[in-house]
Amino acid sequence: MTSVIVKEVERIVATDARRKMIESAVTLLAMRGLQGTAFSDVLERSGAPRGSIYHHFPGGKDQLVDAAITASGQRTVQILDAVEGASSIAITTYFLDLWRDVLVRSKFRAGCAVLAVTVATDSTELLDHAAAIFRAWQARLAELYVSAGVDPTTASSYAITLIAASEGAVALSRAQRDMAPFEEVAAHLLATTP
Amino acid sequence: MTSVIVKEVERIVATDARRKMIESAVTLLAMRGLQGTAFSDVLERSGAPRGSIYHHFPGGKDQLVDAAITASGQRTVQILDAVEGASSIAITTYFLDLWRDVLVRSKFRAGCAVLAVTVATDSTELLDHAAAIFRAWQARLAELYVSAGVDPTTASSYAITLIAASEGAVALSRAQRDMAPFEEVAAHLLATTP
Repeated sequence: MTSVIVKEVERIVATDARRKMIESAVTLLAMRGLQGTAFSDVLERSGAPRGSIYHHFPGGKDQLVDAAITASGQRTVQILDAVEGASSIAITTYFLDLWRDVLVRSKFRAGCAVLAVTVATDSTELLDHAAAIFRAWQARLAELYVSAGVDPTTASSYAITLIAASEGAVALSRAQRDMAPFEEVAAHLLATTP
Repeated sequence: MTSVIVKEVERIVATDARRKMIESAVTLLAMRGLQGTAFSDVLERSGAPRGSIYHHFPGGKDQLVDAAITASGQRTVQILDAVEGASSIAITTYFLDLWRDVLVRSKFRAGCAVLAVTVATDSTELLDHAAAIFRAWQARLAELYVSAGVDPTTASSYAITLIAASEGAVALSRAQRDMAPFEEVAAHLLATTP
């Protein structure tokens, strides 16, 4: 019985260590990009012992990066549940708020982990997973706009525009370390919300 | 006299070597991002001798990257001269065509060198230069829209939206290796051109 408990505790600790490593990788990717995110930094940030990274990610850095962008992508999809049943304007406002938060909280030092990976890799696997995340965001946003009464084609087309323009606006505000570019793009996106 | 000619030839060769290194860096940044662009790859691609990179860029990699994004940024501003006096729709179409070309020609392997640097650095100097480039694009586009009869505030606000949304759309299409995301965003941008 004790060994069962010990095993369960070990499993929880291991899962927690894995989760911390993934979270650290998300943060580092959002701040420094793909090649700027080293295993050693992930270990330092997560406080995990050196051996554990290879234990949890035997496939190496690509596997960790994959887990990180997947976690980050899924979280965004889940967070959007908050605007289920809301108006179109409320959905756009909420999505823009998510990005505004990233910029403000990080003092312009962080952006989107998925974008950072996309522009710095030619790994088909990583690109496939980044693409799947962007598609999942688009599908979820489109679904929300349809619930708000927008026709499906317009909803899907506006959703991808919202994602693309937000991603670009976050990068422009990071470069300028100023909310102005983001806010100008946000105003356009709100004004053109279907 | 001969020595003057020899010196002039040496100067031209050196300038040409420098130009080739900058061009190689632009291409590599657009394809692999900041940390994915190594001095050794720039040398290989440009065919320049090893010593020459330190001769032309004594400030190291940041100096080369700076020269590369500046060259890439200035080229975009110059290319926009082609739509001087054109209609708003023609200006938007032309700017979108520039990005469409990057995606098609590179078979989705390249994007924007300036964006790639922005999302992967915390160097204040590099961010300042990236910001200056984005501002120069915005200013030039706004000027063109004003020439086409758009009021200055709308022109400036639409210009930054066009840049941000194009940047994001290029990244989404790279992830999916498909023009669809770019074309959907492009349609929205054309439909909302002032």
